Amino acid sequence: MLHQTIQAIQPLNQAAMDQALARQAELTKPAGSLGRLESLSVQIAGMTGQINPSLTNRAVIVAAGDHGITAEGVSAFPSAVTPQMVLNFLNGGAAINVLARQAGARVIVLDAGVAAELPTHPNLINAKVALGTNNSAIGPAMTRDQAVQAVEAGIKVVTEECQNGLQLVGTGDMGIGNTTPSSAICAVMTQTDVADVTGRGTGIDYPRWQHKVEVINRAIAVNQPDANDPLDVLAKVGGFEIGAIAGIILGAAAHRVPVLIDGFISTAGALIAAGLAPLSRDYMIAAHRSVEPGHQIMQKHLDLQPIFHLDLRLGEGTGAALAMPVVASAVATLNQMATFSDANVSGKL
Amino acid sequence: MLHQTIQAIQPLNQAAMDQALARQAELTKPAGSLGRLESLSVQIAGMTGQINPSLTNRAVIVAAGDHGITAEGVSAFPSAVTPQMVLNFLNGGAAINVLARQAGARVIVLDAGVAAELPTHPNLINAKVALGTNNSAIGPAMTRDQAVQAVEAGIKVVTEECQNGLQLVGTGDMGIGNTTPSSAICAVMTQTDVADVTGRGTGIDYPRWQHKVEVINRAIAVNQPDANDPLDVLAKVGGFEIGAIAGIILGAAAHRVPVLIDGFISTAGALIAAGLAPLSRDYMIAAHRSVEPGHQIMQKHLDLQPIFHLDLRLGEGTGAALAMPVVASAVATLNQMATFSDANVSGKL
Repeated sequence: MLHQTIQAIQPLNQAAMDQALARQAELTKPAGSLGRLESLSVQIAGMTGQINPSLTNRAVIVAAGDHGITAEGVSAFPSAVTPQMVLNFLNGGAAINVLARQAGARVIVLDAGVAAELPTHPNLINAKVALGTNNSAIGPAMTRDQAVQAVEAGIKVVTEECQNGLQLVGTGDMGIGNTTPSSAICAVMTQTDVADVTGRGTGIDYPRWQHKVEVINRAIAVNQPDANDPLDVLAKVGGFEIGAIAGIILGAAAHRVPVLIDGFISTAGALIAAGLAPLSRDYMIAAHRSVEPGHQIMQKHLDLQPIFHLDLRLGEGTGAALAMPVVASAVATLNQMATFSDANVSGKL
Repeated sequence: MLHQTIQAIQPLNQAAMDQALARQAELTKPAGSLGRLESLSVQIAGMTGQINPSLTNRAVIVAAGDHGITAEGVSAFPSAVTPQMVLNFLNGGAAINVLARQAGARVIVLDAGVAAELPTHPNLINAKVALGTNNSAIGPAMTRDQAVQAVEAGIKVVTEECQNGLQLVGTGDMGIGNTTPSSAICAVMTQTDVADVTGRGTGIDYPRWQHKVEVINRAIAVNQPDANDPLDVLAKVGGFEIGAIAGIILGAAAHRVPVLIDGFISTAGALIAAGLAPLSRDYMIAAHRSVEPGHQIMQKHLDLQPIFHLDLRLGEGTGAALAMPVVASAVATLNQMATFSDANVSGKL
């Protein structure tokens, strides 16, 4: 399924992009004055093959998983918070629920590997690969087969959604400890020092940060992940929910559905996706720039410009939800504005 | 009316801000992880005096005016475009109409000094001070009385709206040539070289940019505006719509209504407002960071952090409309999220 999905990803539709560009030039505004809204409208035309796609069927898919590396004391919160927050998502009380409601999006929770049994619920998809990863500071986080399974869990859920009419998707994550594997993926895939891509996560102090850097360096030294083999990186130092996010991105790209990439953990998933299928990058929209220092490095590596700089560092897909109305507004300006000739407005001197 | 409005502006409500801060600390997320959304929710509590204000009655007020200084050839477009675009606003075909619809906001057009007679229309308020300003490169743009009249036009329209239930307002501008007076105001009030605060406006080339800098320097030399007297600056090198925007801000602040400041021209109005009433600054939310180089300098002077970096340079209130859902989302997270105890989520280790 992974191979087929990668093969199905096509380049952006150049004819639709040309049509969008031509229309932008006729609208009643100085050329280029809507900035990133204009480029977004063109990119979305390329993704969807239409200059006026409907983007009303929206969802944020929040992938959840636990991390064996929390045994090393890298997080400010206990792992028990992962299943507690999944229940909070299902009860509608988390930040992502509020922001998704504001954005007119559903919240779908994907259990890719939470270390607890969870109840059945219509908005919870059980695709648990295992009860959390192994501790990557002493060996691989997961097997290569499990890495493929995690990615395919993301592909499967987004494919079903796209077949049922999903038009705009955002990625989200929940997993106590998951800035640690994300920093590891970032360091390996962008060839950057661990200390430069590691932040305070949910809120650790400086000594704990030094320890976190040391633990990540140890995980990389022990496992020797191959930067040219994204599945190897995911298996050795990644996480189940990060693999699932990579799958959500690949599946959305294969269905020509624009995908909003949330923060640091989602962008680690995007690095894996772009490594597996470089064309998938064209279907990504970076929602925001997180406080985590590695986020900027990953976005630069992927050549993605964030929409917001709001100092968010929560994850869950919160930035992705917040960006959905901006994406819709970009498409609306392209299609609903009058042209110079419609409105009898004079052009440049 | 100006004096009364300035006197009516009160400091932020500290009790409401304390209540908002205390609630933020109990919500199911790491402390501070919603970044600017958290600080916005606290600021809005301080403005409105409530942690859960309704922000559904929304409007963008677009102030329009013409500029005598266009005789110096500082703009890429002819002045005839100002009234043409006002008609476009009234017909619903401009970018601000599309973006305001997306944000659930009405568009109100305020003619503060367009150099053409305009038709009567329910969404157009006729508060024309004159048929455009005088050419400030050879003398004052307007008299001091006219400057007061322009500011009071803005106060009047926003006061009526607030009395009729307006809960969230955005500022907007239309006026061919108005980056020129805005750069002049910025240079004078932030004590910065004209060349450092002058940009390409609607799209002039480098020789025309050099000419624009020279014209602005001439206007400042001829008029000698007093940086400590905002009305003097407005009268000598400003514009009617810029004065009206200052009035919209002052009137909103006096009614404790949050006001989203759009781009470069709106922020020039904000400089005048903050000069007249320093407390008004607390009611301002910077929507975005424009491409115009002076915008950053003005925002720094006002200590305002923009929500978006989208390379917008259109004006009309487009950035302000785009930011309205973000402001509403900030308030929604504060009020709709579950607390740690509600949701049985564990705290920090």
